[in-house]
Amino acid sequence: MRLTGQLLIGQSAVSGQNGTLRGIAAATGEPLEPAFGGASLHDLDTACTLADDAFDLYRETGLEARAAFLDAIGRQILALGDELIDRCVAESGLPRARVEGERGRTVGQLALFAQIVRDGGFLDARIDPARPDRKPLPRVDLRLRNVAIGPVAVFGASNFPLAFSVAGGDTASALAAGCPVIVKAHSAHPGTSELVGRAIQQAVRECGMPDGTFSLLFDASREIGQALVADPRIKAVGFTGSRRGGVALMHIAAARHEPIPVYAEMSSINPVLLMPGAVATRGEAIAPQFVASLTLGAGQFCTNPGLILAVDGPALRAFEQTAAAALDAAAAQTMLTPQIHAAYCDGVAKLRAHDAVDTLAEGAQGGAYQARAALFATSADAFMECIELRDEVFGPASLIVRCADAGTLHRVLKSLEGQLTIAAHLDDDDAPLFRTLLPTLERKAGRILVNGFGTGVEVGHAMVHGGPFPATSDTRTTSVGARAIERFLRPVSYQDVPAALLPPALRDGNPLNVAQRIDGVVAAREANHG
Amino acid sequence: MRLTGQLLIGQSAVSGQNGTLRGIAAATGEPLEPAFGGASLHDLDTACTLADDAFDLYRETGLEARAAFLDAIGRQILALGDELIDRCVAESGLPRARVEGERGRTVGQLALFAQIVRDGGFLDARIDPARPDRKPLPRVDLRLRNVAIGPVAVFGASNFPLAFSVAGGDTASALAAGCPVIVKAHSAHPGTSELVGRAIQQAVRECGMPDGTFSLLFDASREIGQALVADPRIKAVGFTGSRRGGVALMHIAAARHEPIPVYAEMSSINPVLLMPGAVATRGEAIAPQFVASLTLGAGQFCTNPGLILAVDGPALRAFEQTAAAALDAAAAQTMLTPQIHAAYCDGVAKLRAHDAVDTLAEGAQGGAYQARAALFATSADAFMECIELRDEVFGPASLIVRCADAGTLHRVLKSLEGQLTIAAHLDDDDAPLFRTLLPTLERKAGRILVNGFGTGVEVGHAMVHGGPFPATSDTRTTSVGARAIERFLRPVSYQDVPAALLPPALRDGNPLNVAQRIDGVVAAREANHG
Repeated sequence: MRLTGQLLIGQSAVSGQNGTLRGIAAATGEPLEPAFGGASLHDLDTACTLADDAFDLYRETGLEARAAFLDAIGRQILALGDELIDRCVAESGLPRARVEGERGRTVGQLALFAQIVRDGGFLDARIDPARPDRKPLPRVDLRLRNVAIGPVAVFGASNFPLAFSVAGGDTASALAAGCPVIVKAHSAHPGTSELVGRAIQQAVRECGMPDGTFSLLFDASREIGQALVADPRIKAVGFTGSRRGGVALMHIAAARHEPIPVYAEMSSINPVLLMPGAVATRGEAIAPQFVASLTLGAGQFCTNPGLILAVDGPALRAFEQTAAAALDAAAAQTMLTPQIHAAYCDGVAKLRAHDAVDTLAEGAQGGAYQARAALFATSADAFMECIELRDEVFGPASLIVRCADAGTLHRVLKSLEGQLTIAAHLDDDDAPLFRTLLPTLERKAGRILVNGFGTGVEVGHAMVHGGPFPATSDTRTTSVGARAIERFLRPVSYQDVPAALLPPALRDGNPLNVAQRIDGVVAAREANHG
Repeated sequence: MRLTGQLLIGQSAVSGQNGTLRGIAAATGEPLEPAFGGASLHDLDTACTLADDAFDLYRETGLEARAAFLDAIGRQILALGDELIDRCVAESGLPRARVEGERGRTVGQLALFAQIVRDGGFLDARIDPARPDRKPLPRVDLRLRNVAIGPVAVFGASNFPLAFSVAGGDTASALAAGCPVIVKAHSAHPGTSELVGRAIQQAVRECGMPDGTFSLLFDASREIGQALVADPRIKAVGFTGSRRGGVALMHIAAARHEPIPVYAEMSSINPVLLMPGAVATRGEAIAPQFVASLTLGAGQFCTNPGLILAVDGPALRAFEQTAAAALDAAAAQTMLTPQIHAAYCDGVAKLRAHDAVDTLAEGAQGGAYQARAALFATSADAFMECIELRDEVFGPASLIVRCADAGTLHRVLKSLEGQLTIAAHLDDDDAPLFRTLLPTLERKAGRILVNGFGTGVEVGHAMVHGGPFPATSDTRTTSVGARAIERFLRPVSYQDVPAALLPPALRDGNPLNVAQRIDGVVAAREANHG
């Protein structure tokens, strides 16, 4: 497929006239062909009109038709073949195997949401039947289902050019919920975005979905992204990116005449607790696993282990030495964009120069846009005093905080902001301390894990990729896994609506064979859909 | 019980020193004894500290213990007997039977949430078991449950001094979720608030719950309410009241370092659609039902029918005449507060004086603080042009919008803001038109009802008392019914956490006997809990 650099507005492809942007080869900083034309406010208006027009039709498509559409998107993405992989590798600088794996995850997410749509449980169908004989007042017939919230704006992430971008988790869960989607492409991978956008456009056509079900806009400034969040036809926003960017969108959404939810996944330093027993018995085994997690994908994961908390002593110092040795040997890796690389270098330089911080190790030097891994250490006192030590350094850098005792470790933990993940390494002896810390872990993080690292986010039913602010803007939600669909739904009650006018999910006899909660109890479904 | 006018901070009663307020006899405007001392910022800090200290304990109380606590609150409220009813009647001006009915609803809500807690389904327990043999990568063990979001601030409503106030739906659902609650009492019924607050305080003691599980603050200005929403220990807000008040709290919450959800139920004019067939065949039967709904409780329901949309013609005019005759005969009724009465008179005066509005009827004149019901009519053109005709007039006033045809009616409907309810009166002949309108009804309202009126909100599993802004601040939620508990929960994942350290709801063997979703499928539970 020849890249055209065009906006995809419904079933049209339009050359944007509002400035241009280009993909950049991450490894060399060289601009790539073609130029992408930026969307104008008029283009945005057209996309929003189409999405709003499509909404009532799209949200009432049958469950099987909508699931088949999600599956078709996955097929069309795979049909792009190596062209997608090549372009994505060039734009992101990520290794080929990683990009291929991410494509698998992206298609897997679409398949998961297709399964969730077929199941129909997300509708939360409820029936409280009428009780005409109830005293003192008869009870009305009341039925509830979830409906799609409305057209959704999705902002792709730089660090997952497939799985959190044009056809990523936000788009998949919004489409599954019945919401048309308008994607504002990330400027770091416009070619990847166009390819995936055309795959979705093709699936819309193939499945006979309304034109406005999907649009893809390029933005040569920040104007269009901001206007998209402010547009009254947009009813929710999905975003993965920086804290500054996410908070800016939150403020735009809160200032609207009709405020709307923003699901921003932003900033997390993902503390790792090394419990005394575990450090003493196997600290030197944990150290290389830690370095492997820290340097995976050049440290550009939302769940990258940027902070280690441990009780100081000989065992921790031995851990530090082993980790430093492993990190010394870590190869430099190309970062996603020259800007991200520059920000990383800046963050590392600040830590290196900080009076209260020891530099334990730095990895190998690399090319102009390659990150050199780095490991630092500081005291709990300094960490409590110096707020700048808490800033996320996006990339393969981590800071060890040496705590005088377990009580100090708990105080440091309590002082942290919200996190996507907190990992604890523990042995049997550490169980009592872990029990003491657990309530704090639950307050601070969306995912708590034992004897592992947060990198590697399983896409399933029990995953939470979320957490208290600033990890996300909305701690009630997850952006990965089955529950991501809930972000794009709202409940509606139907009172005494005649049977023939009820949505099928709420009819007696359960024609859709979805789970129906009757007077609060979920009725069994037919086995063939189980 | 002698009213003391004291703040209830955990298990203490403290005389507030930051100004005073008094209940006012709604019927006469006379101040009632005693004076209530306003909370200081120090009192607020104490209450928040206690709530935060109580949180980790309270949220992990056993399901049966927490359910028994909710039941105990209901018992303690009933034990207040006539003293509560007398004081509530005096402060609110509501008829005795209504107040007694509202007490029943309040106790019923507590019982519903006790049942929901015992059921345990709100935990949304999920288990994706490990698959060590999965290729290319083994799958980790991942489990999810909902946890309580944190201490909650509740702002009582003037119009439901029991069911939406100190022990109302917000408090009941937050306590059910595992959240300590701090109530800012509504200034319109401080005596009722103290009585109910003491009932909760007694239940906390009786059930051995942590001291900080509940506090009740009086606020002589707006300072304490605003500071409560801004306090970093507060993690969610429930509010029922005016649009201005709700939006002010939304802005405070959005401007916090850590933004938090505000569940504000604010403003709705609850359109009633009179479909052509229904008006023609039984408009004169619908008219008195409409007037009864309009004047119920002096029109001070959130779901009061403030707007009628209908196709103009002889049938509508006959409806108007019958409704006007019924309304002429409607007795004046005492309003909740002199301020609400003044605002109602002002709203009615503006409609009466409006060039494009016909006054169809006004009810009987009454006492100084009594509302006179009023019915107005205007054209669709005027309604589309004059934005002021959309303002909620809180009280027994309604405006009929005469539409030239069904298309005009649909355009007017599309132009409305979000609503709690939309009612449609229809006959079999109207089914095709209703089908055309239904997608718009679903976009605009949280509850759609046929051949009835929105007043009378059933507390059950399928109720949505919510809707798009400005009906509420968060269209994803309901403040009445079983799903209200979801507002105060957030999901947490546990990855590879050893069995002995897992929360009981997530353990193999299901010791709590709650619904567990295993690999996406809800496992059957033991029948005795069904």
